[in-house]
Amino acid sequence: MAAPASRSALRALRSATRPARCTIRPISRTCIPRQSLRAFSNSARRRDDASDLSEPGHDVRYTTDLYPELKRDSRFTELKQEHVDFFKKTLEDESAVIDGLSKDASDDLEPFNRDWMKKYRGRTKVVLKPKSVEEVSKVLKYCNDNMLAVVPQGGNSGLVGGSVPVFDEVVINLTRMNKIRSFDDVSGILVIDGGVIMENADNFLKEHGHIYPLDLGAKGSAQVGGNVAANAGGLRFLRYGSLHGNVLGLEAVLPDGTILNDLSKLRKNNTGYDLKQLFIGGEGTIGIITGVSIQCPQRSKAVNVAYFGLESYEKVQKAYKEAKLQLGEILSAFELMDAASQGFVHRKTEMKRPIEGDYPFYCLIETSGSNGEHDNEKLEAFLEHVMGEEIVADGVVAQDGTQIAELWGWREGITEAMGHFGATYKYDLSIPIKDLYKVVEDTRERLESKQLIGDDKVALGVVGFGHMGDGNIHLNIPVRRYDKDVEAAIEPWVYEWIQKKEGSISAEHGLGIAKAKYIGYQRDETMLKLMHQIKQLYDPNGIMMPYKYLSGEGVKEHTGAATS
Amino acid sequence: MAAPASRSALRALRSATRPARCTIRPISRTCIPRQSLRAFSNSARRRDDASDLSEPGHDVRYTTDLYPELKRDSRFTELKQEHVDFFKKTLEDESAVIDGLSKDASDDLEPFNRDWMKKYRGRTKVVLKPKSVEEVSKVLKYCNDNMLAVVPQGGNSGLVGGSVPVFDEVVINLTRMNKIRSFDDVSGILVIDGGVIMENADNFLKEHGHIYPLDLGAKGSAQVGGNVAANAGGLRFLRYGSLHGNVLGLEAVLPDGTILNDLSKLRKNNTGYDLKQLFIGGEGTIGIITGVSIQCPQRSKAVNVAYFGLESYEKVQKAYKEAKLQLGEILSAFELMDAASQGFVHRKTEMKRPIEGDYPFYCLIETSGSNGEHDNEKLEAFLEHVMGEEIVADGVVAQDGTQIAELWGWREGITEAMGHFGATYKYDLSIPIKDLYKVVEDTRERLESKQLIGDDKVALGVVGFGHMGDGNIHLNIPVRRYDKDVEAAIEPWVYEWIQKKEGSISAEHGLGIAKAKYIGYQRDETMLKLMHQIKQLYDPNGIMMPYKYLSGEGVKEHTGAATS
Repeated sequence: MAAPASRSALRALRSATRPARCTIRPISRTCIPRQSLRAFSNSARRRDDASDLSEPGHDVRYTTDLYPELKRDSRFTELKQEHVDFFKKTLEDESAVIDGLSKDASDDLEPFNRDWMKKYRGRTKVVLKPKSVEEVSKVLKYCNDNMLAVVPQGGNSGLVGGSVPVFDEVVINLTRMNKIRSFDDVSGILVIDGGVIMENADNFLKEHGHIYPLDLGAKGSAQVGGNVAANAGGLRFLRYGSLHGNVLGLEAVLPDGTILNDLSKLRKNNTGYDLKQLFIGGEGTIGIITGVSIQCPQRSKAVNVAYFGLESYEKVQKAYKEAKLQLGEILSAFELMDAASQGFVHRKTEMKRPIEGDYPFYCLIETSGSNGEHDNEKLEAFLEHVMGEEIVADGVVAQDGTQIAELWGWREGITEAMGHFGATYKYDLSIPIKDLYKVVEDTRERLESKQLIGDDKVALGVVGFGHMGDGNIHLNIPVRRYDKDVEAAIEPWVYEWIQKKEGSISAEHGLGIAKAKYIGYQRDETMLKLMHQIKQLYDPNGIMMPYKYLSGEGVKEHTGAATS
Repeated sequence: MAAPASRSALRALRSATRPARCTIRPISRTCIPRQSLRAFSNSARRRDDASDLSEPGHDVRYTTDLYPELKRDSRFTELKQEHVDFFKKTLEDESAVIDGLSKDASDDLEPFNRDWMKKYRGRTKVVLKPKSVEEVSKVLKYCNDNMLAVVPQGGNSGLVGGSVPVFDEVVINLTRMNKIRSFDDVSGILVIDGGVIMENADNFLKEHGHIYPLDLGAKGSAQVGGNVAANAGGLRFLRYGSLHGNVLGLEAVLPDGTILNDLSKLRKNNTGYDLKQLFIGGEGTIGIITGVSIQCPQRSKAVNVAYFGLESYEKVQKAYKEAKLQLGEILSAFELMDAASQGFVHRKTEMKRPIEGDYPFYCLIETSGSNGEHDNEKLEAFLEHVMGEEIVADGVVAQDGTQIAELWGWREGITEAMGHFGATYKYDLSIPIKDLYKVVEDTRERLESKQLIGDDKVALGVVGFGHMGDGNIHLNIPVRRYDKDVEAAIEPWVYEWIQKKEGSISAEHGLGIAKAKYIGYQRDETMLKLMHQIKQLYDPNGIMMPYKYLSGEGVKEHTGAATS
């Protein structure tokens, strides 16, 4: 990152007096202190799990305390010394096995047992870090033969408790599979190990004029294999689309040790069933992704970011429609943030807000294109229009990379900011755009009516933000601590709400353990039966990711959640 | 289409004297006669199967003559009167069953038994045209219960013999399922019946400012369900990507009559295995696609098309790299056509060529963007560069919609033009870009060395064209008639060639019957085993598309093709 820009370079679009037809006013400036700019751009885009998790005062309960109805599946073998010995012999390298059986290694195991949100915590006694697909194959086959349950783990940056064990599952961590295998700068096709960290992949691509087709707040820890297993969406889905389209090939290991070699380096290949697609969004339940071939777009020469305040959700919709029309092919993100979300970022960072005044909604728009002059012209015409028509009330445009990062910080920093004040209930929802924000309003109303929200209450607020262009909103309820009353007020009520709107109860975060018992709100019996067939086909012993994904249907009956 | 443009409007970029640094010369004009312009733009983009197939002089052999080693699978029941009676009773409408059992209906059945290339011909005695998913479910379940083999059929515009029966399979034709179910012009999500013709879908979308994310020469007859089943690629894959990314949901009927209801209208939905992906490119082997939900991009306000002559394949690669760099996000097609391909179009249409002089390679570049002025500037800068650097030797830019269609005709008309002179062996190959054209050169050399090519020989030439940006070339060998010597000279040699280059033996056309026996050149034993598991899971009786797709592996042994 270059030196922080002078604040005077942040061009404001404010229309203080609000004339009949507003125009862009490049003279008026916002006052973001230099040090805030600098601080923000570096912190918000990286998440350091270890330091997060070791924060004092956060007593992480075990997942089994959260879900007391979950019982360890007795079909699974308990870890014995002979198993650990096999792993050590097979993986050779001393550091490849964290052994909590022979000795007390709880401190070493903790970062692999706990998720970064401090919501989920398992009790594994062993973490394996294979360094090749052959090693993954050997240890996975061994687990399958010996009925040892397994959790594949990437950067452990998931949001649904998928990447940590529930009981004593063996953790197979991909961190040591971190090589870039090949890159073709004519076609843009990158082939990498599953354990490569997203940001490292993107930095490598940057040197070659390309971009990783996915971006998200946790890019500094999330791994590409995990991205694919979770079918991550992220910030630039609007422009570059789904991993189902961008992933060209996979190398994966099935529970029985079979290596699926489908690491095609071709954009098109119509030769049989596209089996790799089952692993994209399969959340590690049918195998472990060890290699990824992915189509990477050319890096745009010009990037612009604007940040707006808007007076209503109707105006947000109008702004989105205009952005699609006028910015067309250069629009690379259209993000929605409500007042509450920006309030949390402000409280956490103490940064001066990009624009003055309070608005119920804020949007962040990014353009990426091959010609800066053209992009500026398009953006200015768009801004002039939305200001002139009073669709947008106020706004700023970043003038350099530092300011771009700073504005993105107001979007990407939301999750971290809320976490700072306690814990957060997270719902990642797809909803037709016209009703996208209504779920936040209805949830707020519901919690207020139950007197669960407020300064002296357990819930700190109800927050909505997300990917407007994808019809994907993150409904978040920051709380002082996880609380059964709050949870009971929201679940399954919110899933019923989504079901009525034909939305999705998990847009991009996946099922993990958090949504496992609510899948019935989304999928009918036929679809569930067909999905179970696939699980049965690839993982007949059920060793992969037990208690998660589709396995929660049984839980539904125990808790009565879906029938209340 | 508007009235044909005056020819003077076609701006030429010719550099007749080739100075040290060429510049765009808008003065010099090409001479395309008005009537040719008009004739071309209408004919090339539509294929009327019925008229094609009834052309006299084309005696279509039965597929079983082409593959004498294929034997009818005796597990399948032969059609009886009781079956036809059931179909008539179930589908109600008189016109929904073409019954060739009770009476001679060979003329009526012929268009469903033959493919448009006149290469494949089956012997079905019954064609069913259900009009709802429930009807599809009922007849398919009946076929499954009674061991009647089935071929699902869309627009019958495939290129690998997939869409017509081999023996007496029941044809289930989707033509009557042709409704547009819903469209959301904010999100661009279209939900349609599987039997909607592509062009009709696109025309509907045009009225709503959007575009069908796929385009191909056969758009006038190809159906969307068939597009998806075949995982069609086409002309704008470069820009809008794969159907694996664009298809948001499917409704499909499994062989046992189960209706898979996964017709999501959401861009993001991470709730379980993405089963629909198996049907995308499944070529109807595990079920029939009756409904499609698809993400449609906004229609670009500005479209430009340029057509170039280039002196070598090295220069084609340079031009492609420059186009990616300079046109970036507005590049929507980069098509390659060799001299032979353009010669066939010229011979068939007798149109004057867009540019004078002979070049070994021609390219068609299309840009689509939201701002015509910006696009023109980008295109001009690009053209100036590639002309100035002598990467491109000569070129023209279309000045209006008619000329755009006319230039596209030189690309889209290739297949039809070759067909006019007899038949064509077609190979649809993915190859890393640097070797993309070498397969054409090597094939030409091989046929020449075997004295199979020439004015008095069976092969008329070796033709290469395709989607440069996707690394996808169509190697075509037009012949006076299908000929065993030519076929033996090419197959399996060409598949071995592709195998060595780690390419694909089917980029976008699929396997059908044409490639079924060569799948072993593409996929290893593990992948094939896993694919057979999927087939077995969904179609345990094997009634769907017998003798095709993966089932050709047995044939390999009969012919010895893969071992020679």
